Amino acid sequence: MPHSALDLQQDAARLTAQLVDLPSESGDEAALADAVEEALRALPHLDVDRYGNNVVARTRLGRAERIVLAGHLDTVPIAGNLPSRLDEDGLLWGCGTSDMKAGVAVQLRIAATVPEPNRDLTFVFYDNEEVAAHLNGLGKVAEARPEWLAGDFAVLLEPSEGQVEGGCQGTLRVRLHLRGTRAHSARGWMGANAIHAAGPVLERLAGYQPRWPVIDGLEYREGLNAVGVEGGVAGNVIPDLCTVTVNFRYAPDRGEQDALDHVREVFAGCGVEEFEVDDSSPGALPGLAHPAARAFLAAVGGEPRPKYGWTDVSRFSALGVPAVNYGPGDPNLAHKRDERVETALVTRCEERLRRWLTA
Amino acid sequence: MPHSALDLQQDAARLTAQLVDLPSESGDEAALADAVEEALRALPHLDVDRYGNNVVARTRLGRAERIVLAGHLDTVPIAGNLPSRLDEDGLLWGCGTSDMKAGVAVQLRIAATVPEPNRDLTFVFYDNEEVAAHLNGLGKVAEARPEWLAGDFAVLLEPSEGQVEGGCQGTLRVRLHLRGTRAHSARGWMGANAIHAAGPVLERLAGYQPRWPVIDGLEYREGLNAVGVEGGVAGNVIPDLCTVTVNFRYAPDRGEQDALDHVREVFAGCGVEEFEVDDSSPGALPGLAHPAARAFLAAVGGEPRPKYGWTDVSRFSALGVPAVNYGPGDPNLAHKRDERVETALVTRCEERLRRWLTA
Repeated sequence: MPHSALDLQQDAARLTAQLVDLPSESGDEAALADAVEEALRALPHLDVDRYGNNVVARTRLGRAERIVLAGHLDTVPIAGNLPSRLDEDGLLWGCGTSDMKAGVAVQLRIAATVPEPNRDLTFVFYDNEEVAAHLNGLGKVAEARPEWLAGDFAVLLEPSEGQVEGGCQGTLRVRLHLRGTRAHSARGWMGANAIHAAGPVLERLAGYQPRWPVIDGLEYREGLNAVGVEGGVAGNVIPDLCTVTVNFRYAPDRGEQDALDHVREVFAGCGVEEFEVDDSSPGALPGLAHPAARAFLAAVGGEPRPKYGWTDVSRFSALGVPAVNYGPGDPNLAHKRDERVETALVTRCEERLRRWLTA
Repeated sequence: MPHSALDLQQDAARLTAQLVDLPSESGDEAALADAVEEALRALPHLDVDRYGNNVVARTRLGRAERIVLAGHLDTVPIAGNLPSRLDEDGLLWGCGTSDMKAGVAVQLRIAATVPEPNRDLTFVFYDNEEVAAHLNGLGKVAEARPEWLAGDFAVLLEPSEGQVEGGCQGTLRVRLHLRGTRAHSARGWMGANAIHAAGPVLERLAGYQPRWPVIDGLEYREGLNAVGVEGGVAGNVIPDLCTVTVNFRYAPDRGEQDALDHVREVFAGCGVEEFEVDDSSPGALPGLAHPAARAFLAAVGGEPRPKYGWTDVSRFSALGVPAVNYGPGDPNLAHKRDERVETALVTRCEERLRRWLTA
């Protein structure tokens, strides 16, 4: 057995350490994908497929429902925080511990130890989650092999501190262009100041009253914010262009077009010459009313929370699969040099998933 | 006589061409300053001094009044527009024709041809006017040898199309800093948006009613304008800083401190945390009520106009010498590749100054 072969018999905490010590920065996931594929192919109850550095393994038991457990293999760049280190308080330190090799370890442990689950299972391991959206492995599989991702309910094992986070909000970024006419600032009356023209846009933003709708029992909090403003030619010139970039975070009961329509409506009459969409990713409904989701909630316990940030659950939502985030890592430690995970939480997360899938 | 020696016996138009063909981009004025100094030293009625590449020549006739005629030797970078070329319409083309070797030619012609003026005369030729203010030769002379610039009235031969432009407006640039608190834009309610906080500043600017006061019969037009705005950390972050840069162009009946006080007052209550002065240059009163100025106006004719832009007349004003702009060039052609001057205007300008100084 080569040294990188994964041992799925050790507990999830130890397996996390082994995964962490197999570096897999975005774009460099091949070795880890190989190891995951090899370990899964050794399990006779699973059919294993691979597309690029994305690995999908499925049971074929003919159950009434199919559950997808998904996680990404890649990490942000290593920041002098490898190899991993377990301290006396049971904290495992290192790049990718929370985000999200602890979650991947739980996936692998369920794959290895639950050969006859009460629902058919699909395990998805994908690459390039931490980089530009168009590189995302889950997106590539969804495009090329959507049937691999079919299911009734999906759990994304992203860090959520062992709490269920339902769905996710959508995000839309739009550049609002205001125009004017250049002139020398000593003769300002000969021009029209594009920065002054942005005043009503900022006033509208400051007075904006966001919706906080409740969906499937979860309160989502919309928000509309300027995330950038730029204008100015030189210290003695009346500027002819000012651009305000706004970011609309919206609840998953809106679609992408509805979100854009709303932004246009908010700024109606503000003199915006052009609305340039810079980025748009739809939200995902939590789907907590689905029987599989109810059973999942009952098994893992706790109060589900809404997810405000955008995550890959949105990709499942787009495929018609309700999805939640549920993983042992701490999202506040993700991407940090002092990233760590509480190993007790990794084990507990594994146990609760097993309880749900074997009850 | 070396080829670069100036011939002050030729008319002002031909002398302009000779000056233009002796390149003197800012920082490279030594050869032209040498030629000017040499030509002036050949005139027995003048005392000549030099400080760096700045040359000052004075009559010592004990007249009741002293007039300063000033001009800069440097030009903006040559843009393929040398040597000079005189066309059949009497237009002289080339770098520095309008701004302002035509004016320098007029100064030199008066120096050479009016040995017994009715008022004592001071001729000032200085370097580095087209670059950063701290390099300006007139400023350096004013600091090191202020007595060389003493006088009752000054004429700066900057391009003004042969019209008298009185005084100049002041200019003040201030950076207004608005603060907030960073947060992820998916959880905007946890932060405070500094860009939104700039709304009242822009509204105040848009609604600003400038003064257009009349001073010595000239209408000055104040103006307060944003010339820059910047804010934003990343596409998903509530920004904690937004800076609006404003430029206040003010009439010369205000001083620098008054101008800054006014800007602070305009934005009172807008939540500006800091007013950072970026640039400040006082205006200059036209001083057209002075007897020497009245005689000058009568001699050169035309209706005096206010000068909206900032010019070096402000430096004379700071020394207690009222000053105007009056030169043969066209300010709209300054710094342009197709810069040119109407030679008839150069000659006329010379004649009118001579009439004033010999009447």
